[in-house]
Amino acid sequence: MPILCKPAVNVPENIVTLDDTLRLAEQLHADHPKLKLVLRLIRNTGVLKRHTILPLDETLRHPGFEARNLTYERHAKKRVPAVVELALKNAELTPQDIDVIIYVSCTGFMMPSLTAWLINSMGFRHDTRQIPIAQLGCAAGGAAINRAHDFCNAHLGSNALIVSCEFCSMCYQPTDHDIGSLLSNGLFGDAVSAAVVRGHGGTGMRLERNSSYLIPNTEDWISYAVKDTGFHFQLDKRVPTTMEPLAPVLRDLVSDQGWDVSKLGFYIIHAGGPRILDDLCRFLDVKPDAFRHSRATLTEYGNIASSVVLEALRRLFEEGETENDEKGIIAGFGPGITAEMAVGTWADGSTTRSADPRRAARHPVS
Amino acid sequence: MPILCKPAVNVPENIVTLDDTLRLAEQLHADHPKLKLVLRLIRNTGVLKRHTILPLDETLRHPGFEARNLTYERHAKKRVPAVVELALKNAELTPQDIDVIIYVSCTGFMMPSLTAWLINSMGFRHDTRQIPIAQLGCAAGGAAINRAHDFCNAHLGSNALIVSCEFCSMCYQPTDHDIGSLLSNGLFGDAVSAAVVRGHGGTGMRLERNSSYLIPNTEDWISYAVKDTGFHFQLDKRVPTTMEPLAPVLRDLVSDQGWDVSKLGFYIIHAGGPRILDDLCRFLDVKPDAFRHSRATLTEYGNIASSVVLEALRRLFEEGETENDEKGIIAGFGPGITAEMAVGTWADGSTTRSADPRRAARHPVS
Repeated sequence: MPILCKPAVNVPENIVTLDDTLRLAEQLHADHPKLKLVLRLIRNTGVLKRHTILPLDETLRHPGFEARNLTYERHAKKRVPAVVELALKNAELTPQDIDVIIYVSCTGFMMPSLTAWLINSMGFRHDTRQIPIAQLGCAAGGAAINRAHDFCNAHLGSNALIVSCEFCSMCYQPTDHDIGSLLSNGLFGDAVSAAVVRGHGGTGMRLERNSSYLIPNTEDWISYAVKDTGFHFQLDKRVPTTMEPLAPVLRDLVSDQGWDVSKLGFYIIHAGGPRILDDLCRFLDVKPDAFRHSRATLTEYGNIASSVVLEALRRLFEEGETENDEKGIIAGFGPGITAEMAVGTWADGSTTRSADPRRAARHPVS
Repeated sequence: MPILCKPAVNVPENIVTLDDTLRLAEQLHADHPKLKLVLRLIRNTGVLKRHTILPLDETLRHPGFEARNLTYERHAKKRVPAVVELALKNAELTPQDIDVIIYVSCTGFMMPSLTAWLINSMGFRHDTRQIPIAQLGCAAGGAAINRAHDFCNAHLGSNALIVSCEFCSMCYQPTDHDIGSLLSNGLFGDAVSAAVVRGHGGTGMRLERNSSYLIPNTEDWISYAVKDTGFHFQLDKRVPTTMEPLAPVLRDLVSDQGWDVSKLGFYIIHAGGPRILDDLCRFLDVKPDAFRHSRATLTEYGNIASSVVLEALRRLFEEGETENDEKGIIAGFGPGITAEMAVGTWADGSTTRSADPRRAARHPVS
């Protein structure tokens, strides 16, 4: 059964604190009729700091879509290789062992995608499959895990590399003054992350079942307006209410596996915002502490889009208290509104390091 | 074994003939130092006409990236449903039978992708998986077939819908005057297409093996420059030479299946341009007639990007001469430079309409 190994995550060196964000909102939008509401919403995010690829003053200037996208590409090439290397090391694999690279990123656009550059520059095999996904937004972390799971089931013994590159600061649009945009300016952060799904062996989450769900008729609740100035993130005020229709979907998925969603050992949930986490806790009847890794990710890094679930999972690994065979769930949420969900059990490595005939043939010495 | 059923393809009502293209090139680039070369290259494409979503005079005006992208979205919603309906009919399935929608398109950008709108407006189940791919360009047709194949193998008994929406005319950039751009202006056309991969039963190509290959260090041979004016297609003059390194890859894939690449019953090859087809014929030691469906697609519709392989396959179905168990290959080529390849055998429906317990349970009456 495929195993999702320990993710590697990196946040850039530039820090924007909550105080920076509040001060900026007051300065830049002093005459905004809803300034008090905006400040309250930003405070309520619980985001104490974010990290950005550029210093704050540069982030605030918009040099045009072309320049932004070139910055995205330059920083992707600068920052992604290190997390890829660490994710491979965490999985005890080399680039030559990888059969597919799933690259998710909604904050910049390249064709060919970064997958081609990664294959050429990091020693991956030239027959590595490429699955670049740009249009699932924050749900793409969950989607990448699920497509990696599917790939490993379709090609037994294969290994998948997931890469998430989210420079949300490259979507800051100084001319957007609606409340959703001003809130988003205080919510999102930058991060790169990577994780391996091993077809055989390893330590981490055994991927046992996955599913997807689109909440009917919510296409325009989370979306991009694509303009000459790039991607303009549009957030509907009804988004925080989406856990009510999604909680039963999570409950059913876990029930299909024969388990109880209120009694799982671990929960890796997309930290879209504080109300998402609070509501889902309540609807699933679990203690707030169950979502501690998602909450910590939100507090320390902000909403890092498709990287959230990988960072929350990394924190679960760091905690080191998950026991063999403990049951858990991963859920990413994003535009559509789409939920991408996976359930599985913890593999501490004691029972899963089975001999894989394909690997053995490929690495006769190891 | 999953079966790729008969595709549905639609081209828009506006026609640009070779004469239109040559006349325009002469008018718009009268002072171009390489005009004669450009005219010869355009003539050599063999493209006699293309179809476009807008009339020619409107196509030639660039109203900005935002307006272009809105046109893309409007025409996608107008033109895609009919091909989806026909593809489903060809596969004898309904929207409720589909488990994943793989949407490929490199000529417009939407988030959420059109998958969300299709699910909401065409009666697909809300747990349908969405795999939107924007960054594999012309190779995405082959990639979509291969990911559909993988999905059906990972989720036995499931069905995949492939949708390709390519409005290449929305990437016409009047300010680009390099030879690759002027050639491209005479090469690409618009089309929408769709096809179903059935997990069980059906008529078409049994998908038996797939693979991908990236030619080393050719990332910048086919690429987009992403600018404030949208996607600028960049074509390196070395692209026509790529069949020499790719032919052995196709040969090896077919050999892995125990077959001879020179002796297959059908060949569905991306019609990137005439030299691609001529060279590959020669390197694979097959008669030019073997690529007749790709050549006809190029002549009548131009290079319709990820839709080429689906249109060439549709022509193979229309011809109606493929016999049960005949061996064949599909190969798409695009940025990376990436080849996405699939091999399989023809299923005429006589032996494959097996009882599928999951389907039977879902449709107890049928």
